[in-house]
Parts: sequence; C-alpha cells; structure tokens
Amino acid sequence: MKYGFGIDLGGTTVKIAYFDENGTMLDKWEIPTVTENAGAQILPDIAASIKGYLEKNSIDSAAILGLGIGVPGPVNSKGVVNKCINLGWGVFNIAEELSSLTGFPVKAGNDANVAAMGEFWKGGGQGCENMVFTTLGTGVGGGIVVEGRLLHGAHGSGAEIGHLVLNREETVRCNCGKYGCVEQYCSATGVVRLAKLRLQKDDAPSALRSIENLVCKDVFDAGKAGDKVALEILEQVYAYLGEYLANVCNVVNPEKVVIGGGVSKAGSMLLEGMAPWFHKYVFHAAGNVEFALASLGNDAGAYGAFKLALDAFGA
Amino acid sequence: MKYGFGIDLGGTTVKIAYFDENGTMLDKWEIPTVTENAGAQILPDIAASIKGYLEKNSIDSAAILGLGIGVPGPVNSKGVVNKCINLGWGVFNIAEELSSLTGFPVKAGNDANVAAMGEFWKGGGQGCENMVFTTLGTGVGGGIVVEGRLLHGAHGSGAEIGHLVLNREETVRCNCGKYGCVEQYCSATGVVRLAKLRLQKDDAPSALRSIENLVCKDVFDAGKAGDKVALEILEQVYAYLGEYLANVCNVVNPEKVVIGGGVSKAGSMLLEGMAPWFHKYVFHAAGNVEFALASLGNDAGAYGAFKLALDAFGA
Repeated sequence: MKYGFGIDLGGTTVKIAYFDENGTMLDKWEIPTVTENAGAQILPDIAASIKGYLEKNSIDSAAILGLGIGVPGPVNSKGVVNKCINLGWGVFNIAEELSSLTGFPVKAGNDANVAAMGEFWKGGGQGCENMVFTTLGTGVGGGIVVEGRLLHGAHGSGAEIGHLVLNREETVRCNCGKYGCVEQYCSATGVVRLAKLRLQKDDAPSALRSIENLVCKDVFDAGKAGDKVALEILEQVYAYLGEYLANVCNVVNPEKVVIGGGVSKAGSMLLEGMAPWFHKYVFHAAGNVEFALASLGNDAGAYGAFKLALDAFGA
Repeated sequence: MKYGFGIDLGGTTVKIAYFDENGTMLDKWEIPTVTENAGAQILPDIAASIKGYLEKNSIDSAAILGLGIGVPGPVNSKGVVNKCINLGWGVFNIAEELSSLTGFPVKAGNDANVAAMGEFWKGGGQGCENMVFTTLGTGVGGGIVVEGRLLHGAHGSGAEIGHLVLNREETVRCNCGKYGCVEQYCSATGVVRLAKLRLQKDDAPSALRSIENLVCKDVFDAGKAGDKVALEILEQVYAYLGEYLANVCNVVNPEKVVIGGGVSKAGSMLLEGMAPWFHKYVFHAAGNVEFALASLGNDAGAYGAFKLALDAFGA
C-alpha cells in the first residue's frame, strides 16, 4: 500500500491530509498560511510540516507516492501558478518548487477545480465520468471533470463559470470588474442583494423586512414559510441558476451537476425550484443530467488534491 | 508507415479520405448517403467502398491502423450513437458495427466535434492544446478540444454551444425548440433574420432594402461600404457573438478560438467587430485568447475523423 498527501492551500490556513491509495483519509491537520514577504514562507512551511509528520510517525519516504495541492488562483496542467493575489504570489512552477522542497513528486491545480475532483472521486459526483461542480458561497466557483480528468484550462482558468454573463443590462459591477455575472445573482451575497433590491421596490409586506442583517438563509427560510416576497426573490434566483447551469451543460454535457457552498444548504428546495428553469434553457440532448449536493464540505479540496497526485504518480 | 481512413458522414453524401499516419491526405472521394430503410445501408456502403478502394489499389489490410467517422448526431466516447434524425438512425454502437463490417478498429464522434479535431490538428487550431471551434453556417455548431482530446460529453452532446441561451426575452422559437439561442443571432440565417427585423423597424435608408433575397454576405458587404443600417445590424451580431464566445471561454479557457462556416467568410471584419464585445464579457484570466479562421473547409471532418483513429490505434 502506498500513501500520499492532499493539500488545500487557503488564504489563512493550509489544510493537509494524509491518505492511503484507496482514498481513505487517515489523518488531517492545519497550519497557518504566512502571507508576509510575498508568501515566501508558504511552501517551506508545508514541506516542513509534511517532513515532521513523516518523522513523528516513522513513515518511510518510499511509501509516499506524491503530493497534490490546490491553490487559490490559476494553475495550469503543468503546475505553473499565474499570480495568487491573496498569497502575494507571482508566476512560478509550484509543482517543481514544492517537489524540490519535499523530494516527492507534486501535482497542482486551482482550488475550485481540485475541490471538483474531490467531489467527483469521493463526494456527490461519485459514479459518473463527466461532471460539473459549482460552489454557491460568498462567490460562485466551479470545476469541470471531463472523462475523469480535470479541465485545467490553457492558463489555469478553466471553469471560471461564476463569471458567465447572465444579464447584459446589469448596472452594478461584479467583483471581477464585469457586469451581470452569475456570481451577482447566485452566490449567497447575490441572493441577499436581489432580496434588498426587491424589498426596496415597493411596500409589499414581508417577514424579511424585520430582519436587521439579512443573510441568504433568511430568504430561503421565509420562502419555506410561504412569504410571498421571499418566494418572488427565490424564483429570480432559480431562473438565473437554471440558465447558468443549462448554459454550462450545453458546453460540457455532464452526467451530473454537483452543487456546494452555503446556498446549497437549501438542499432539495433549491434543486426543485431551479429544475424547471434548467429544462427551459438546456439543449434537449444535454438535458439528461442528475443533480446532487456536494458532500465533502471543507475536505473536498484535500481529497481532490490527493486524487491529482494518485492519478499522476499512483500504480 | 501506417495508413487509415477518415469518414465524414453527412445527410446526403459520405466523404471518405485516405491518410498516412503523418496526416497527409492521399486521396478522397464521396459516395451517396442512402437514408432509406432507416439508414440500414449506410454502414455497409461505407465498408464496401473502403474494401473496394483497398483492393483496387492493392493495399494490404495490415497497413491500415483503423478508421474514424464523424456522424451528424450525438455520439459518446464509446461510439454509441444516440439517434441521428437525418439518417433515420436510433441508438446503437456505430464503432462496433462499422468495425465488424470492415475488420478494422473504429473511433466515432459527432460531426461538429470531429471537424473541431480536424481544425485543431491540421487547420486554424494548430499549435495549441485547448481549443474552441465554432461554425457559423446555416446553424451554429461547435467542438471543444481539452488538452488535445475531444470533449465528447456524457451523451455525445458536448459542445452544443450553438444553443447557449443569449436572450431570455426572445419570442421567436429556435429550431431546437428553445428561445434565444446563439444560433438565432450568429448563424448566417440569424444575421439575415436580424437584418429583416431592423429594416422593418423604421424607414431609415439602406442599400439592403433593394436586395430581393437578402443573404448574410449582403449585410457584411453593405457594412463594408459604410451602410449605416447594415453597420447597426452587424454591431448587434458582434455583441451576441462576443458574449457567446466569452461565455464559452469562461468555461473552457482555451488558447485559441477557431471560427468556420459561411459567416466566417467576413474574415477580419468579423473578428475585429466582435473583439471589443468579447473582451467586455470574458473573465479577465480567460481573456488571453487568439482568434483564427478555420482553414480546412469541408475537409475538416475527414481530417478530424482520421485523427481520432490515429490517437486511438496509432503507434
């Protein structure tokens, strides 16, 4: 039996997990992400943590097949990072650098893409070969698996599907600098934004008006309780989400779409609300899609990162 | 040196080409597509034509690495056709059936996807690893290459990008049954449709008014000559085309987008007109894209079909 590590590198912490080659997570821990000095300490810290773990547990290096790492920025299939603003990183080959620091072979990917690979392997995407993954959280991210392989994209920006344009008439700017992106309507932040716009429009009574710091869950809860204004807002969200996922499925034609992130906690209510809009907008031959909820939570990145290493360096 | 065949199966003719393994097209010919009896004769006719060619030219079967075929309908990566309405075909494994008829191994793909592979290998897409191909003809088709491999899709409907929804407010139905698809605005037919709608809107003078059977080329020609109404129409087309290709690039992040079909004959005028709209709608990290015109014309399908066989069965 061989073993390896899956690393999920975030802006504040690095999650490191130790796996056997069947994909059983045997251990996991976190270390802080030190972003000072243009993030120069990040990879040496990871290497030291892994070496320390192997020593402490008397694990022979020969048993380690390799490492995988997910990075919060564009990474191409060769391991070249193209700027991670949160980490202070420029352009360099993270796979080569982490490999020379640890002595193990390394595969790298963008964090959302790597999380998609995790869900594909051990989470909501199990059992298919072509999968679209989207996280509806503070922002909207995504990852795409084509015949079992991650779509990295030419410049490591494959599956930036949260920035498809849904609304040419939008006058508010998205965080990315464009107007009318998916993220402005289908993220948790987007749901709250649509809710506030609707509440401002007229005086229609709604339980949402008495809530001081409105969050996404409030809108779904009010909708569940039958609040008419909340249901109107949710119908808008469902329409945007259905069009978004239909357009991605028209490109990729997956068997499964897996949805994660805070908004996905609405569960079947979200899936059922979105379904008629999805079928309105999807091309008939690409419409045979199963929808599933993400199931690995914060571990998806570590699973997916290890899977990249396993596919590249495993037996 | 090994050899093989690339077959482009259309609704009226079958194009068959003979290649060496470097991709040099050594010969090509056509036979009619006999669609009677639910297309039962199509594959036997192809097999007979290939066997006859080998005999006539005294080519040893041992020199043949295999066949590739592009089909006008959905085909998954395993060769299963999922209904070709034009041919009268239902659901069956075309790769297995053509293989048992010829004695050679067979790879199959959707015709637009296979044409994409041809342009990727020997046409406008040469030199990249990730490519989006779109044909703007009577309809709008497409094909996607990811790290050198065709994106077939789970049900053989990958890259049905002509049916992305661009306009939720559209009241005219697309051929596919939906409303507001790319094909309704960016095909040659779509350009003429937009032109007629614009001309009906008011009495603004335009050279287009005196043309009896308006075709797509007339609109570009009038635009080139400075006709204001034609330029207005083209700006609409460019905006739709830019948004369409930006959204596809947001999903795929290719190095190159290759444009073929009748509308692409407008050449640099089309590319330059579309560029500012593309950059308005594309996610910054996916915006570094080279645009090229398709260069293989009607041979793209045969080249791509042979390439599928070469990748699968070549040395």
